[in-house]
Amino acid sequence: MTKFVLAPDSFKESMTAKEVCQAMTNGIRKADPTAEIVSVPMADGGEGTTDSLVNATDGQLLNATVTGPLGNKIQAEYGILGDGKTAVIEMAKASGLEIVPKNQRNPMITTTYGTGELIKAALSKGVKRIIVGLGGSSTNDGGAGMAQALGVHLLDKQGQKLPFGGEALGNLDRIDISEIAPQLGNITIILASDVVNPLTGKNGASVVFGPQKGATPTMVQELDSNLHHYAQVIKEQLHKDIDQLPGSGAAGGLGAGFMAFTNYEMHKGIDIAIKVTDLEAKIKSADYVFTGEGGTDFQTKFGKTPFGVAQLCKKYHKPVISLAGYLGKGIDTLYDSGFTAFFSILPGASDLPTALKNGPQNVATTVENIVRLIER
Amino acid sequence: MTKFVLAPDSFKESMTAKEVCQAMTNGIRKADPTAEIVSVPMADGGEGTTDSLVNATDGQLLNATVTGPLGNKIQAEYGILGDGKTAVIEMAKASGLEIVPKNQRNPMITTTYGTGELIKAALSKGVKRIIVGLGGSSTNDGGAGMAQALGVHLLDKQGQKLPFGGEALGNLDRIDISEIAPQLGNITIILASDVVNPLTGKNGASVVFGPQKGATPTMVQELDSNLHHYAQVIKEQLHKDIDQLPGSGAAGGLGAGFMAFTNYEMHKGIDIAIKVTDLEAKIKSADYVFTGEGGTDFQTKFGKTPFGVAQLCKKYHKPVISLAGYLGKGIDTLYDSGFTAFFSILPGASDLPTALKNGPQNVATTVENIVRLIER
Repeated sequence: MTKFVLAPDSFKESMTAKEVCQAMTNGIRKADPTAEIVSVPMADGGEGTTDSLVNATDGQLLNATVTGPLGNKIQAEYGILGDGKTAVIEMAKASGLEIVPKNQRNPMITTTYGTGELIKAALSKGVKRIIVGLGGSSTNDGGAGMAQALGVHLLDKQGQKLPFGGEALGNLDRIDISEIAPQLGNITIILASDVVNPLTGKNGASVVFGPQKGATPTMVQELDSNLHHYAQVIKEQLHKDIDQLPGSGAAGGLGAGFMAFTNYEMHKGIDIAIKVTDLEAKIKSADYVFTGEGGTDFQTKFGKTPFGVAQLCKKYHKPVISLAGYLGKGIDTLYDSGFTAFFSILPGASDLPTALKNGPQNVATTVENIVRLIER
Repeated sequence: MTKFVLAPDSFKESMTAKEVCQAMTNGIRKADPTAEIVSVPMADGGEGTTDSLVNATDGQLLNATVTGPLGNKIQAEYGILGDGKTAVIEMAKASGLEIVPKNQRNPMITTTYGTGELIKAALSKGVKRIIVGLGGSSTNDGGAGMAQALGVHLLDKQGQKLPFGGEALGNLDRIDISEIAPQLGNITIILASDVVNPLTGKNGASVVFGPQKGATPTMVQELDSNLHHYAQVIKEQLHKDIDQLPGSGAAGGLGAGFMAFTNYEMHKGIDIAIKVTDLEAKIKSADYVFTGEGGTDFQTKFGKTPFGVAQLCKKYHKPVISLAGYLGKGIDTLYDSGFTAFFSILPGASDLPTALKNGPQNVATTVENIVRLIER
């Protein structure tokens, strides 16, 4: 009996990782009804991470009412993994760009306060660690809102609390951590991020990611200057020099906020997913591994899900087949990293909406034919 | 050393069969530089048959000046295979729809005379057999023009020779074969056709294929009636009852003309190509076979190239992988015929012109990944 391990990421705008696993399973079953199939829907710390890790560990999904990026109340989902001791949060669920209407995107005022509230909700469940996915932020506040939600007081010269957003940070004078949530001292925040940018400067959060969140060139300059000031105050008063730490610029500087106020570790999203799902043990006993993502090209080697999966497969000399809706330039550079072969799932010339809609059928057909070939 | 046999058809509007072989070779070489590769560009009797068979046998391509479908002189290519005893002709080169401007397509007047002239040219080379590809005709003359070119006199009541085209056949009164080319008695015409339609009636040449050649409903009726009369005269005077023979309706009744006036055999195009190229012996010693065509769906089992190749592979238990620019409905019904697996060559959502243009690169990449997978 052949054992297949399925460890795909989501195919963005087409299928969740779980749906990809289901489609792959359908394809395998058509070619080999007796195959053993182990589905391990993966995630790289971005959209779908909560779902994937909760599913993989038989955990539970919960909801909390939190403060959205613009200050209004919203419902945000988070997860408790099957071990009962680990929470998983996506910052984008509380503070993401997708939940801000396009014409209201403004990183001068958007806040990570809701992300802090999600952490508080998780703390109330008694967890020992919280995985935080940093992708997809609408904010540029250096994690100031997150800190405020957790009891940190950010005060101006008059001793008034700063309002939300990256603009207000220019007035930061004093940081009072005396009322910070006490449980934070006993837990680890595990940051899931593929971004290694520093907080400020030409590779910093404001310059690199500000514009896609709605910042004008003038705003970018002010936001960068404000974050630099924020880092200076943190350095002087908390004795933590976070400004140029790799990843401090992730999620509009939310990385820096965690570095300043919490016990943190930072890992690539795929490495966290691999650990949480115990993927290594599963691959060890596999005959074949399938992975995949919406689009594969040279960037896949910068920590994307299939790359992490392929590296494990290389370690155990397992063949790994990677599927994609789009195969771009630079596939050639990936074989040395453990990939056995890449296949596109497209059955023919097609517009993008049709391709996205037919994703499940196309994955199933492609996998069926691959299994027919390898088990001939 | 792994031995690959490459036996694809052309990918219409994108690559000739020879170009597909070249692209497949490029892909194999990237994955396995030491592989043994045997290229056998195939054809199904349609466009490209002459090229493929001449290439496969190290034969030669020749040109003849012949009468086009509308009566004007044109240059038409034909081939002599490597054995020096077999000619190959595509009726479409002399009498095809593609060489008639759209606004001049009219099966009332188009003639197969040029096809007869190509046969005469081949006869002058001393061949023992002539393979005739019947696809792509512009004509509906029952092969009358072909017969006329070979010395058959088709006369009306006044003893006058009939003019060209399907319309004139209504006036046929007498067939005089006393001056037919004498070499015809010593050679075999091998008709390559996947069409099994009879000459006349509701499945006949005029009704089924007339409209796509420019016939109006009124013309279809007259053409069908004229072909029926033509068959009656042949039956009465030559004692050959061809009207309902399978394939007599191929190429606007050119099939019937060969049945009436020559020693003929009729085979599926792919079966002829397989025999001429000695594909069976090559497959017998192969480790893997690649085939393919522009589009694959349930119709592929009606005698298309990959189907013929797959059946041979089934006989010798060889894995055969079939590529296509488009995988359509009904692939499921093909595995029992010997196909191991099907893969589309498309790397992602794409418009058709781009897909056609990138055919060679897409074939190479797909084959490379398949070889990486099977030789892992």
